[in-house]
Amino acid sequence: MFKCLLTFACTLLCATAASSQTVDPATLDNLVDAALADSWAYERLAELCDEIGPRLAGSPGMVKAKEWSVRSMKEAGFDSVWMEEVTVPVWTRGREWARVTAPVEFELEMIGLGHSDGTGRGGIEAPVMVVGGFEELSIRSEEVPGKIVLFDMPWEGYGSVATYRVRGTSPAAEFGAVATLVRSATDRSLGTPHTGMMRYAAGAPRIPAAALTVEDAGRIRRLVAKGHEVRVRLSMEAENRDSTICHNVIGEIRGRELPDEIVLLGAHLDAWDAGTGAHDDGGGCAMVMAAARQILQQNLRPRRTVRVVHFTAEENGVFGGKAYLETHRDELDRHILAMESDSGSFAPRGFSVDANDVVIADIAARCAPLARLAPEHWSVRRGGSGADIGFIVREGVVGVGHRVDGTHYFDVHHSGADTFDKIDPTALARNVAAIAGLAWVVAEPTARPGETPAGGPE
Amino acid sequence: MFKCLLTFACTLLCATAASSQTVDPATLDNLVDAALADSWAYERLAELCDEIGPRLAGSPGMVKAKEWSVRSMKEAGFDSVWMEEVTVPVWTRGREWARVTAPVEFELEMIGLGHSDGTGRGGIEAPVMVVGGFEELSIRSEEVPGKIVLFDMPWEGYGSVATYRVRGTSPAAEFGAVATLVRSATDRSLGTPHTGMMRYAAGAPRIPAAALTVEDAGRIRRLVAKGHEVRVRLSMEAENRDSTICHNVIGEIRGRELPDEIVLLGAHLDAWDAGTGAHDDGGGCAMVMAAARQILQQNLRPRRTVRVVHFTAEENGVFGGKAYLETHRDELDRHILAMESDSGSFAPRGFSVDANDVVIADIAARCAPLARLAPEHWSVRRGGSGADIGFIVREGVVGVGHRVDGTHYFDVHHSGADTFDKIDPTALARNVAAIAGLAWVVAEPTARPGETPAGGPE
Repeated sequence: MFKCLLTFACTLLCATAASSQTVDPATLDNLVDAALADSWAYERLAELCDEIGPRLAGSPGMVKAKEWSVRSMKEAGFDSVWMEEVTVPVWTRGREWARVTAPVEFELEMIGLGHSDGTGRGGIEAPVMVVGGFEELSIRSEEVPGKIVLFDMPWEGYGSVATYRVRGTSPAAEFGAVATLVRSATDRSLGTPHTGMMRYAAGAPRIPAAALTVEDAGRIRRLVAKGHEVRVRLSMEAENRDSTICHNVIGEIRGRELPDEIVLLGAHLDAWDAGTGAHDDGGGCAMVMAAARQILQQNLRPRRTVRVVHFTAEENGVFGGKAYLETHRDELDRHILAMESDSGSFAPRGFSVDANDVVIADIAARCAPLARLAPEHWSVRRGGSGADIGFIVREGVVGVGHRVDGTHYFDVHHSGADTFDKIDPTALARNVAAIAGLAWVVAEPTARPGETPAGGPE
Repeated sequence: MFKCLLTFACTLLCATAASSQTVDPATLDNLVDAALADSWAYERLAELCDEIGPRLAGSPGMVKAKEWSVRSMKEAGFDSVWMEEVTVPVWTRGREWARVTAPVEFELEMIGLGHSDGTGRGGIEAPVMVVGGFEELSIRSEEVPGKIVLFDMPWEGYGSVATYRVRGTSPAAEFGAVATLVRSATDRSLGTPHTGMMRYAAGAPRIPAAALTVEDAGRIRRLVAKGHEVRVRLSMEAENRDSTICHNVIGEIRGRELPDEIVLLGAHLDAWDAGTGAHDDGGGCAMVMAAARQILQQNLRPRRTVRVVHFTAEENGVFGGKAYLETHRDELDRHILAMESDSGSFAPRGFSVDANDVVIADIAARCAPLARLAPEHWSVRRGGSGADIGFIVREGVVGVGHRVDGTHYFDVHHSGADTFDKIDPTALARNVAAIAGLAWVVAEPTARPGETPAGGPE
């Protein structure tokens, strides 16, 4: 009863103190401070990573992860928690290995690419052709038939390598390659293979595709450069199977005054079967959930609804994001803002906003008190939002990307190194504080982001 | 003929210019500059790492490595190249794997420890007991029977962890453990298991032993701390086999005036079967060989003999070093100095000297012109020399350790990440220059290190 009275008093106070675009500074400060002092996200993430682990959509791990998600959202005290069906193509890895058989024999550290077909029984053995990009592949296309093509791309940022992982296989197949290999998309390797999604072009022969470590790709490149014919034997049991039903998991804190207006906080629940998806994107799931929970923990109830979404099947084709758009197409105009956290749980840096200049400036101003979470690094600026929310952002919803220090993200991304020990609890808590703060400054004031208040500018 | 005359003139000049303790500064500078401009060590190391690779003593790789060593020393132009027999116990790894079977199933990234026995067919499955050291093992000894003991040691330098790798198994076995696991001896991991030597105490049950990644050890520790019984299934085909004959490979530049006095430059040729032994210790082998070669390339011939030794079987028990002592016991007083390079091929830092203060000060003074190879970092100071030369140093030979930047050595040490791509050609050339310089300032002056010249101090 005492708690109820307190809640009521606080709600009244907040409603009073908040102007059309701003919130009560003390309330925001308290929310941030409480998030900084809280370890709930860290504990939930430990459970997800250590006690569940890999959770590719369609795998048994994802079933457990979904249960973790529902259980955690209920524990967080959300008003409602539900699941929405998503049809997802199932891919299984099976056993896989590769070795160099000439001019010197050695085992390759490899990992098959997501949604690659397997090699069939007995595997494939062929000489390797090393290319530095699509242009070289095209120029040397007459050499390709019967070869395993290795894309050995120097690191110039993630996209420079990941392009060949996602789209490199089919052009090589069309020239007659029997398999493709790609150097792992990372700047730093300690013998660490990195997987990720690949796609076959319609009509192209479906040849198998795998990633090698930076180390092994370099060794093959150097051997070939010395004039050796390098032969590789590749065996992959990977299979593309029938579709199955997975679920986006959604939890809400219902708004006290504008419950139909939604501030969405999203992250993706699925993770590759290397490592335990700590930074990609278990941390995101824990953080968005903990951010909304922290508002309740402060006995606050925002004017608008705060909706937490754990998307499924981002890694193998953003199926959860697509399904969310289809399911919620009729209520997109009620989505005031959608934020996604999918860049890891390193120290916070601010937000990137995919909207017009007025909205960006307004969000930046509302978030200014959060700058203390990233001294000398904080910024709210124009930029991309996220893969999952991308579908609704392209339909006009204001999109926000959660920005963090990216220095070491690709050290661990999609690899066996993306594990709970890489999570800094302090950075995690600071991110929770930043996301809770963003949710509050968007969900609480009467004015939407970028909206001129009824009474004119303040 | 012209070359012969030049060589003769140069030899005469050097002999003239060198005082009893110093060398002609221009000659030393030229030697260093030539080494800095040379890529022979880098090319030889590429061949060893990429075209041969792992080379545990007793393995087929070591046979090829020995041939590489002989071929390279002959190519370097040494006056004589020979091999000396070393009896080495043979250990083979075979296939190996480990997985956690409860409370959640996951594959462990593991690597068996060198000279561990295997598990036998079918492997071993048992609950894991996590301990933080020998003291805890002893206090909790009643819990040990039937368990797999995991030594999960925080990194406080190599020795803090490696002690448990080398000597942890037998105490656990004596308390009734069925196998031991140890967290990899590294400060930085990207899912990278690190192997190394282990030893059974006489009379203790010979249970199998393996290393886990930092990531997997941490996950098991956290699961146990949460109250879970963690069960591991371990399968290792490892076998300790009969001994075989391996070889130290030795090459010499014969001294022009004191050929019986030897300046030894050593490194070990063998390497673990993870990675390709680039820093440990292929780089050392390439550098000591290239340093001596550079003296010849400058048409110099030192007063004393410079002897390059590629020791065999350091990793599995320093058998090459022991054998060298036995073979050369009668000529130890002719060893003026022995230097070993076995700390990686990172940027040079100077030398550590295992000798009396007078000798240390003299070597430091002679090496002073080399300080330009490590601006702001150079020092020649008291310290250890090396495992291989340790046997003759303990008999009184002046021992010198080649010091390099150690920041990243244990990132790659004994792991799949110790590969040629981790070698910086500039750092490698600077090391060759430093070692060539040391060899010259010790082999050329009439006075031995620390010796008061006949004509009194200069």
